[in-house]
Amino acid sequence: MKIQYAEMTNHLGSSAVRDILKVTQGKDIISLAGGLPGEELFPLEAVRDAYNRALSGSASSLQYGLTEGYSPLREAVAARLTRQGIPVEAGDMLLTTGSQQAIDLFCKVMLDPGDKVLVEAPTYLAALQVLNSYRADIITVDSDEFGMLPEHLEEQLMLHRPKVLYTVPTFNNPSGGSWSKERRERTVELCRRYNVLILEDNPYGEIAFDDAPGAYPPSMAAIDRSSGEDPCVVYTGTFSKIVAPALRTGWIIGPSGLIKVIARAKQAADLHSSAIDQRALHELLLHFDIDAHIRLISREYHSRMKLLAGELSGERWQDASFQEPRGGMFLWLKLPAGTDTARLLPFAVEQGVAFVPGEVFYAAKPLKNAMRLNFTHTPPELLPVAVRRLEAALESYGRTLAGAVDTLV
Amino acid sequence: MKIQYAEMTNHLGSSAVRDILKVTQGKDIISLAGGLPGEELFPLEAVRDAYNRALSGSASSLQYGLTEGYSPLREAVAARLTRQGIPVEAGDMLLTTGSQQAIDLFCKVMLDPGDKVLVEAPTYLAALQVLNSYRADIITVDSDEFGMLPEHLEEQLMLHRPKVLYTVPTFNNPSGGSWSKERRERTVELCRRYNVLILEDNPYGEIAFDDAPGAYPPSMAAIDRSSGEDPCVVYTGTFSKIVAPALRTGWIIGPSGLIKVIARAKQAADLHSSAIDQRALHELLLHFDIDAHIRLISREYHSRMKLLAGELSGERWQDASFQEPRGGMFLWLKLPAGTDTARLLPFAVEQGVAFVPGEVFYAAKPLKNAMRLNFTHTPPELLPVAVRRLEAALESYGRTLAGAVDTLV
Repeated sequence: MKIQYAEMTNHLGSSAVRDILKVTQGKDIISLAGGLPGEELFPLEAVRDAYNRALSGSASSLQYGLTEGYSPLREAVAARLTRQGIPVEAGDMLLTTGSQQAIDLFCKVMLDPGDKVLVEAPTYLAALQVLNSYRADIITVDSDEFGMLPEHLEEQLMLHRPKVLYTVPTFNNPSGGSWSKERRERTVELCRRYNVLILEDNPYGEIAFDDAPGAYPPSMAAIDRSSGEDPCVVYTGTFSKIVAPALRTGWIIGPSGLIKVIARAKQAADLHSSAIDQRALHELLLHFDIDAHIRLISREYHSRMKLLAGELSGERWQDASFQEPRGGMFLWLKLPAGTDTARLLPFAVEQGVAFVPGEVFYAAKPLKNAMRLNFTHTPPELLPVAVRRLEAALESYGRTLAGAVDTLV
Repeated sequence: MKIQYAEMTNHLGSSAVRDILKVTQGKDIISLAGGLPGEELFPLEAVRDAYNRALSGSASSLQYGLTEGYSPLREAVAARLTRQGIPVEAGDMLLTTGSQQAIDLFCKVMLDPGDKVLVEAPTYLAALQVLNSYRADIITVDSDEFGMLPEHLEEQLMLHRPKVLYTVPTFNNPSGGSWSKERRERTVELCRRYNVLILEDNPYGEIAFDDAPGAYPPSMAAIDRSSGEDPCVVYTGTFSKIVAPALRTGWIIGPSGLIKVIARAKQAADLHSSAIDQRALHELLLHFDIDAHIRLISREYHSRMKLLAGELSGERWQDASFQEPRGGMFLWLKLPAGTDTARLLPFAVEQGVAFVPGEVFYAAKPLKNAMRLNFTHTPPELLPVAVRRLEAALESYGRTLAGAVDTLV
């Protein structure tokens, strides 16, 4: 059999994330690569109780459910979002298999080959994979530490007439950065003017290190929905980071018409996501103080980030730079220009430490000398060990480079 | 905001299934419409125990998992399939969100707009929806009660050079029919000759009413894999009908290369399906006699089918015809030519009974006078009531038709 695949298979991209995950499965490697939460913080007992309760009612809990998801959970999530400044009805929400599926279904119903999509750089790798799989034309908007530059954004809007802008404006994956309130407002305003839907992907927003009120700007969805205009922000979130990934439950909210179209696409894609996970999450929200749990993990992740940042501030790291993230799961480390982190990776793995080379997070013109470091998965006592191993890797990488130069001479 | 959707949204088709499901939610309606298993037969207690065990180990059970699915469950399913005459390694299998996702991902990586796909008529409605969403050119092959007609199949293979043949050859949804061994062999042989992949969709195969050994022909996958040639049959199955749908766990097996490509598409689509459902199913297979359970539900479904068939054999049904299915969940009832079951449906709903009009199961040239009756979801004591209501609906439909003719005269 000679299988002739669809054209899309030529655009599925390299499977960098998978290769990375495979590397992290090596037993002696400390992985700062995966975007994984800390396992020892999972509320295992509360989750087990929640499944027990979810399965203690009638057998109809095991029947087929609605494509849109289990209604009581949709209502509970809608109420949480409303409390977070994003007023939404359960009817304008769809539950998905993680927020990854929300991104995929949104792109599926929005994008034909060649349609233009604006992204920031760097941005979420698996979103780039989805955009590529639908053969979108991905266009980068220049950013600084406060978000996309409005002048360049407007230029790209006028020039390319994109359909969609995709962003992770809060505790970005991979950069850890967050957009300012002004840039959020300006972006919403410009996108509305140019009839562009914004997909605000917010898996990390609740992992916030500063719990003073008003410490962070509102989400773009909140800004959008307080404007009194038709919503132009589609918003996704997930329980993966605040409860656990294995439950595979995310959500997408947006204009009613769009949510209905996505529901039809989801019906063809899988009928519905796990109804048992959704019932268990609903029970969890009823019987477990999820906000206290989020404060607990945020405090712990904050202290791990501080520990990693401290280790990266020693004398041997004088030529490197980073901004301390104010939340989320990642620290974006820049090495001196000329360093190629993709070529550094095998040296790191040999020393027993893994990271993600920065270049994979760019649609074009990748930064070669950055790397993404995850600080949530590794137990704190191993973070200094990981940094020592990185140092050793840099040393042998430098020696090899010097050797190569010698050979050339 | 004026949202410009992707072209695919124009091909998502009518949401007939959803409208049907909505009808069935009416409290006083006996629904023979949905493709639902009987809830009172779900092994709720065993399922609850299985989740308990799945969540009694380490917290790593809540972490992200492999895109391909939880390895111990893949191995257990591979072993079951091997015992069923389909020798397969876990590595050539992917776990999906129900077998619906298996169909969707397979079509996603195989079909470009305009690619030709052969189907039987009638066939599974949601497969037609998927094929339409990828804008496939759907071509019908003529069938009789033994399966596709080999002469017509070869004609269509030569004429259209299709990429894929989709079939539910065992206890078909909606017709309840099953292909003979000869037709299965001939179809595999012809498809291999013309380099066409067969997608054998087998959600119902284990719901078999006759438990004598050798009572049924082997699956097309078994025939394919015993040929010694490269496999040309891709095979999907699911726990939805033999355990419960809410766990949303199906599988797809096929050539290694294809499974790897599907895994990359699934990674972009949702990273992976619920890992907790997969762990629970693995525990269930270890601690619960699933084969005894399948025998139990098959016996019960058989007796419900017999009851329904008996009710449809009375004097008032002399002009109707059907074949008793030898397994599965559906009875395909043909009314006299000239009856339009889509127009009959509102009369039926008014009388408090629902079915699916046969016409929705055709890509072209629908049979107007057939209907699909599900006999697994309705408690047996209500089946006679449902048939009485159908009779009343036929009567008032007939009267209205006669009235319309009078008016014309």
